Amino acid sequence: MSSAVSPNAPTNVPEMPAISGVKLATASAGIRYKDRTDVLLAILDKGTAVAGVFTQSKCPSAPVEWCRAKLGSSKAAVARALVVNSGNANAFTGKTGRQATAMTAAIAAKAVGCRPNEVFLASTGVIGEPLDATKFDGVLAALATKVAPDEWMSAARAIMTTDTFPKVATATVRLGKARVTINGMAKGAGMIAPDMATMLSFVFTDAPVAPAVLQSLLKRGVEDTFNAVTIDGDTSTSDTLLAFATGAAGMRGVAPIARISDPRLAPFRKGFDAVLADLAEQVARDGEGARKLVEIIVEGAVSKRSARSIAMSIANSPLVKTAIAGEDANWGRVVMAVGKAGEPADRDRLSISFNGIRVASRGARDPSYDEAEVSAAMKRPKIQIRITLGLGKGRDRVLTCDLTKEYVTINGDYRS
Amino acid sequence: MSSAVSPNAPTNVPEMPAISGVKLATASAGIRYKDRTDVLLAILDKGTAVAGVFTQSKCPSAPVEWCRAKLGSSKAAVARALVVNSGNANAFTGKTGRQATAMTAAIAAKAVGCRPNEVFLASTGVIGEPLDATKFDGVLAALATKVAPDEWMSAARAIMTTDTFPKVATATVRLGKARVTINGMAKGAGMIAPDMATMLSFVFTDAPVAPAVLQSLLKRGVEDTFNAVTIDGDTSTSDTLLAFATGAAGMRGVAPIARISDPRLAPFRKGFDAVLADLAEQVARDGEGARKLVEIIVEGAVSKRSARSIAMSIANSPLVKTAIAGEDANWGRVVMAVGKAGEPADRDRLSISFNGIRVASRGARDPSYDEAEVSAAMKRPKIQIRITLGLGKGRDRVLTCDLTKEYVTINGDYRS
Repeated sequence: MSSAVSPNAPTNVPEMPAISGVKLATASAGIRYKDRTDVLLAILDKGTAVAGVFTQSKCPSAPVEWCRAKLGSSKAAVARALVVNSGNANAFTGKTGRQATAMTAAIAAKAVGCRPNEVFLASTGVIGEPLDATKFDGVLAALATKVAPDEWMSAARAIMTTDTFPKVATATVRLGKARVTINGMAKGAGMIAPDMATMLSFVFTDAPVAPAVLQSLLKRGVEDTFNAVTIDGDTSTSDTLLAFATGAAGMRGVAPIARISDPRLAPFRKGFDAVLADLAEQVARDGEGARKLVEIIVEGAVSKRSARSIAMSIANSPLVKTAIAGEDANWGRVVMAVGKAGEPADRDRLSISFNGIRVASRGARDPSYDEAEVSAAMKRPKIQIRITLGLGKGRDRVLTCDLTKEYVTINGDYRS
Repeated sequence: MSSAVSPNAPTNVPEMPAISGVKLATASAGIRYKDRTDVLLAILDKGTAVAGVFTQSKCPSAPVEWCRAKLGSSKAAVARALVVNSGNANAFTGKTGRQATAMTAAIAAKAVGCRPNEVFLASTGVIGEPLDATKFDGVLAALATKVAPDEWMSAARAIMTTDTFPKVATATVRLGKARVTINGMAKGAGMIAPDMATMLSFVFTDAPVAPAVLQSLLKRGVEDTFNAVTIDGDTSTSDTLLAFATGAAGMRGVAPIARISDPRLAPFRKGFDAVLADLAEQVARDGEGARKLVEIIVEGAVSKRSARSIAMSIANSPLVKTAIAGEDANWGRVVMAVGKAGEPADRDRLSISFNGIRVASRGARDPSYDEAEVSAAMKRPKIQIRITLGLGKGRDRVLTCDLTKEYVTINGDYRS
């Protein structure tokens, strides 16, 4: 909540337009942090479709189980409210955790005037501490009276934990003859290696998209966005990405989209995916302690899947990440990470470049290698590592960040 | 080579006895380091059996390929010499790298008076720099004239890279009616998550063990020793563990061991495995930047394999490792790491203890949890994390170390 701008923050923060059918408000419930907001309430118009993807952790948080149950119970999943808190993840909290989700949903339902089943929940913060849901009593009722359509930035701030800046993105696209809007927010920073899901992120649109279509869009959309980002290879118990479609544009004459084959979906999907990609990149850029955004492109693999596996092996290598923190074009460690991925790779066909400068080709140092030139390139805030395997047509791209002493500082002293 | 004792070093360094048939010498070839030894020559008596396990990297170093080829070509693999250099890994060096191994073996063979095929090689250090094998010319010939049976500590020092202390271990065991000796040395420190192999380690014995039996002992022996150690989850291109059996004890009336079913093997295997375990623990204790040795025990898994996978997920989690560096009993991150392993786990049966103090039981914080008691326990130099899954009888144990700012410092500035 400091007014100082993080060096990781994008230079152009978009103006976030209102989305018809979505109103937001934030408050300080005193869950963990002092002097900052830690609760977000979003109220959604009746008939809002909802879809979600979640952590693949075998030990998911209570809110993840709550949302999964609500989505699983109906193909016509609808939502009237979203409650997000930061500071406490309500994960590994046993029976108490389940009771806390039920109580939070009940309090929100009463405040909003809906059924608890229509309330979606997400929590982020410390794992294993009981979440005292009674703190929401009164807070959510007060929030329900002050929700407003233009609170996007304060909403993005309320869900932050170790993030250094609030993360928002927006797109406006054509849907048939009308224009519809897609707004998103995310929080990330650490414990981030999503698998079919992400940290916390919430995307809203006024497009009239049926729940099943929204779910399909989301599932495909995360594959090359949130699932292609890793900070530390650690998968949270709480990763949650929810999408809400209020359908308010339907009142402006847009016919509902009930099938994934609807031809009007193409431009919508483009905008939807762009919002996801924008948020995912911001998460990578703002990894805990990060000073550099790292883009890893693997080409010439036997398949896209194989390229992803190799790119993730590089992105999660502590030795590659510390080298980048040290502005060292240590391509030997890239070779190591390619080798340990266990995917088809032929050392003698491998080429590697850093920020467009080829440092290794065909299994050895590039003949034109110039340490001074490469060293200068490594000082940039964005580092692109391109690996060409020369085996096939598989290509993929993953985003990560460097591993700095600040990461260790942040995580060696998080609970206290 | 500093006389200052590393805080990571074991308090009891064993006296290393001579092994009949093994002579060692070290020198400074000026490969990379100044003012320290960087080449080891071991000369082995005729008829010495050899076995080896190596990195599973798809991009192995030239010396790994050299050794594999020599071992693969014969079931009666014999060795007359071992040459190890530190400072340059001769990895990802293409055709030049293969030429360097051939030249090194030829120089050693001439110095020792054997065939190049009987020379085994290992290199450790920077990846991607051509290794100038002409530097061994003269050096190896001089070493061959000064090899001695008692140079174990200087040998262990010559193979170090970022290690803070030389690693040796020894055992003397009964073999039939005689006593035989097993000596080992290792170097580790970083890029360590072996897979059927290890950093560099060399084990020597005077027992008359046939090559196939030695290979079998080695393959089984690494499973719960070197393969159960991880520093950073990064697998080197150069991991090499070679075992040499001179058979000199045969001259003292010990009949050769030609079959793995030989009943005399039991006490020998025990000693052999103890040497491997001792060296592996020293490697974990001396991980780059490490201040704490971390032992992770997983019990009650559906299988040993599943327990290993969960233990490795915890051991490789940057968030668990930074928490330990911060002396924080952050068991929530242990839950996270259990959850991301993808192995069967039931949150509501999970129990976790740190150094014998139970912090979580049955999916929630332990009722008797006392932060002060746990905090005190976390200050110890060795941290044991025990996870009980309550699903089956699978059990395993993995060693690692904490992740400190020093790790980032060491690896952010390694090449320069």
